Amino acid sequence: MNKFISGLKFNENGLIPAVIQDSKNGEVLMVAYMNDKAVRKTLETMKAHFYSRSRKKLWLKGESSGHIQKVKEIRFDCDADCLLVKVEQIGGACHTGYRSCFYRKLKDKKGNIAVSGKKVFDPDKVYKK
Amino acid sequence: MNKFISGLKFNENGLIPAVIQDSKNGEVLMVAYMNDKAVRKTLETMKAHFYSRSRKKLWLKGESSGHIQKVKEIRFDCDADCLLVKVEQIGGACHTGYRSCFYRKLKDKKGNIAVSGKKVFDPDKVYKK
Repeated sequence: MNKFISGLKFNENGLIPAVIQDSKNGEVLMVAYMNDKAVRKTLETMKAHFYSRSRKKLWLKGESSGHIQKVKEIRFDCDADCLLVKVEQIGGACHTGYRSCFYRKLKDKKGNIAVSGKKVFDPDKVYKK
Repeated sequence: MNKFISGLKFNENGLIPAVIQDSKNGEVLMVAYMNDKAVRKTLETMKAHFYSRSRKKLWLKGESSGHIQKVKEIRFDCDADCLLVKVEQIGGACHTGYRSCFYRKLKDKKGNIAVSGKKVFDPDKVYKK
């Protein structure tokens, strides 16, 4: 067994969260979950794979949109229960068309929100209905 | 109720993961979990608070070490089930003495690991035994 994977701690659902970061500008693009198989497929192909909790299946990021993530580096934290994956993002990471899923920020303590992210594609044109 | 907090999706354990990122150089420092109260305390004080899953209690990051995180910006993702908190990190984020908890990286596909992080303090001197 791969020493890296055998050292990882998956949660009670067999998943480990993965922070996906742009390898060039450091922007945090998304957080998603991998199971053991997704980690293996990511390593094997150097393209990010995840486990979709809603669809309950392995998922190659970009399989519908073409917006794949080319993996440049994989890090893991002190508890070995979280991954940090540095990638080259093709297109945008977010299904809404934004480059990063974190396109909203808290504007004030009352809870008002501001949108501050870069829209890089039109989801209606990318995802077939 | 704060509109921001009421819009967040906490998981089945009442927690939401928070990616902590250095607001200056973009380094991902750690990932920890907040409950509703931790989010509120973080907003109120602008110092990062978490919920410790092992100690089962609210936790001000830096309460023992002095290594607090001054919050500069709070973002949340498209599903509103993950936070991205940009901070000014005093000292180091990791209890091992490294600046970031992600101080190890995968060196090759065989699973060999390399340590590549900056050690900024000696845990034996910071944490009282």
